[in-house]
Amino acid sequence: MVAAKPRNAFYAQSGGVTAVINASACGVIETARKHPDRIGKVYAGRHGILGALREDLIDTSKESVEAIRALRHTPAGAFGSARYKLKGLDQNRAEYERLIEVFRAHDIGYFFYNGGGDSQDTCHKVSQIGEELGYPVICVGVPKTIDNDLPHTDCCPGFGSVAKYVATSIREAGYDVASMAETSTKVFVLEVMGRHAGWITAACGLASEKAGEAPHILLFPEIPFDQAAFLARVDACVREYGHCVIGVSEGLHNADGSFMADSGMRDAFGHAQLGGVAPVIANLVKQHLGYKYHWAVADYLQRAARHIASKTDVKQAYAMGKAAVELALKGRNAVMPTIVRTSDVPYQWKVGSVALASVANIEHKLPRDYITADGFHITPKARRYLAPLIAGEDYPPYRDGLPDYVRLRLAPVKRKLKTDFAG
Amino acid sequence: MVAAKPRNAFYAQSGGVTAVINASACGVIETARKHPDRIGKVYAGRHGILGALREDLIDTSKESVEAIRALRHTPAGAFGSARYKLKGLDQNRAEYERLIEVFRAHDIGYFFYNGGGDSQDTCHKVSQIGEELGYPVICVGVPKTIDNDLPHTDCCPGFGSVAKYVATSIREAGYDVASMAETSTKVFVLEVMGRHAGWITAACGLASEKAGEAPHILLFPEIPFDQAAFLARVDACVREYGHCVIGVSEGLHNADGSFMADSGMRDAFGHAQLGGVAPVIANLVKQHLGYKYHWAVADYLQRAARHIASKTDVKQAYAMGKAAVELALKGRNAVMPTIVRTSDVPYQWKVGSVALASVANIEHKLPRDYITADGFHITPKARRYLAPLIAGEDYPPYRDGLPDYVRLRLAPVKRKLKTDFAG
Repeated sequence: MVAAKPRNAFYAQSGGVTAVINASACGVIETARKHPDRIGKVYAGRHGILGALREDLIDTSKESVEAIRALRHTPAGAFGSARYKLKGLDQNRAEYERLIEVFRAHDIGYFFYNGGGDSQDTCHKVSQIGEELGYPVICVGVPKTIDNDLPHTDCCPGFGSVAKYVATSIREAGYDVASMAETSTKVFVLEVMGRHAGWITAACGLASEKAGEAPHILLFPEIPFDQAAFLARVDACVREYGHCVIGVSEGLHNADGSFMADSGMRDAFGHAQLGGVAPVIANLVKQHLGYKYHWAVADYLQRAARHIASKTDVKQAYAMGKAAVELALKGRNAVMPTIVRTSDVPYQWKVGSVALASVANIEHKLPRDYITADGFHITPKARRYLAPLIAGEDYPPYRDGLPDYVRLRLAPVKRKLKTDFAG
Repeated sequence: MVAAKPRNAFYAQSGGVTAVINASACGVIETARKHPDRIGKVYAGRHGILGALREDLIDTSKESVEAIRALRHTPAGAFGSARYKLKGLDQNRAEYERLIEVFRAHDIGYFFYNGGGDSQDTCHKVSQIGEELGYPVICVGVPKTIDNDLPHTDCCPGFGSVAKYVATSIREAGYDVASMAETSTKVFVLEVMGRHAGWITAACGLASEKAGEAPHILLFPEIPFDQAAFLARVDACVREYGHCVIGVSEGLHNADGSFMADSGMRDAFGHAQLGGVAPVIANLVKQHLGYKYHWAVADYLQRAARHIASKTDVKQAYAMGKAAVELALKGRNAVMPTIVRTSDVPYQWKVGSVALASVANIEHKLPRDYITADGFHITPKARRYLAPLIAGEDYPPYRDGLPDYVRLRLAPVKRKLKTDFAG
């Protein structure tokens, strides 16, 4: 029996980046390097899938062992990510055919696509068109999203580290406000990401272990904003504890569906301003209750905060990258590795897998019973689910007082096609 | 020779809190506990100096050795701080007399006041009036301010940790934006504290070690905002590096002195809104250059971020508390311990001291030669000064995935006076 010639792999990062998506890249590349008999080179897309469409590939074999290892502790997308969604096969068949053309030119036998729901859908379609065009390519998704909204997996790599960051930050701000409240700031508002689902908002709640501990109020995108109930709650909280700390989702909206962040801010020229929801909430408190406030908007800081990544999250991100390669080597096509929880306390999990066909267009929503009946906090059930995901610290190395993150060489692969991508 | 009876000490926290002011409290209390022959109990003011005026004292002797040790890793003001400035002696002599009355009732022989310039001034005045009223009390200031604006000390405890936080955060956000820029966010703005001095803004600059690394542009409160020059710089940066990361002081102002954060934002009812300077800058970029942006406002997160405190800062904060007690025991009245830098590389420092009389009303300003000639970044001289202050990590312990900060018992001292504070 003659061993098949090894084929190359293509890896791409997609959508909003996270503190640990590079840990998944590390898992893919380190695992592939252990199988030179089966996998030749791992090429990465410069700027995600655009790299494939443009035939702009990065040769990861030019990166040292140390550089690839350092991906494990480096946030964001080392090869460049892209917000680029391939259209449906019937609408833009040419794009998929171009992908296959590039894959064929570079003998890509494995496609690893590291992203959220849309990317898993794309990955699935590429496997279908590969088959149709008689070009066999094994397509395996690698889950990633801070929004924690992928189905069939207990959680998504990226989420646990944001969760740890927001819970830590709101606890720290809570200590600050408690110190200041007697003569100064009484209300503090932290705006967090998660426009459509309240997973990150819920994670803020972990910081509050006893009554009176910050955060005192959470405002979820799942619960339409009730101004009267909210203000009454803030006032009661300040009267009882002297201060009030609020975690609010950027996606908080009114009963009519309009986003609170859009509620009428205008600049000096009358232009609508998207000023964030935190200042809107803070100003409401000031106007109606008169309390002095401060507010913060964490924005990218929360999803890039590798310095306080969850060890559990880093491990799982790496494991997903590793498992993707192992699934591919087993010939499993059009699948995505998943995290399967087997026990809450002690927390135990294993790697599973799911067909990509069943991932597309399903959102893993925050269950209503994770939110208290009054809509302003999380339940013990939510805590049981969330707590293990932020467990453990995984500090990056430091140099001169700052995290020492790697910058790769990003050596280009010589182009083979004469055609450019017209998309 | 008969030893004098030990007298009690009074410790109070003042003004905006920091990640390490409790480390100074730890230094004061642990050092005082080593000298029971000289210092009886250490009482702390509940809500700073208000605790003395109201005779609302906390008995720190009721706190365990472990709880006091844990102050070293706990952010914010464990005893409560206060934004409360005593007026001049001639304007409000009654307040100072009340302080001395409370001190006399509780046999306070030592007053340790942990704060910024105003607090050092108050501390000085208390020492004067004590003398006048024939009530001897040794008054020693303990320096604290994230603004780094106290004179005669190389730096201020609290600043180094904010500096480390903002430099780390803007580096991380820089990696994020670089990943996203091809198809999405090209410009990122981080707003940091420091309304009157650009020390914290300057610290952001440490993250950029080579051309092209974030942050690309810094906007200092010392440099009036030049919109045309700024926009040209942003555009050039995006064209050269694909993205642009900006650190901006909350105190950025126009040539006419008006704050950029006040530039005309109105809510739906026409009320002026203080929406932060970051969204104003981001919107300018969007309107004039059309680039997609994101922005963050770190606010209290930056000064409460004990999870990423500078080890140098923690050590210095503790050393200042310790030195304050040692100065007091030497009978040094109306002084403040200082940090004296003896070498940049390797960084070396020792404890000095300065008369409180020379601290009042002098601001340690960011030297113009710490800012580049074009006004948009820091010079090598600034780096040499700033770099050692963020050196080293000093992680708090974690429990269940979150920093395990202490909450003290805060047991009250029985009141002895029948009069209330009328202030």
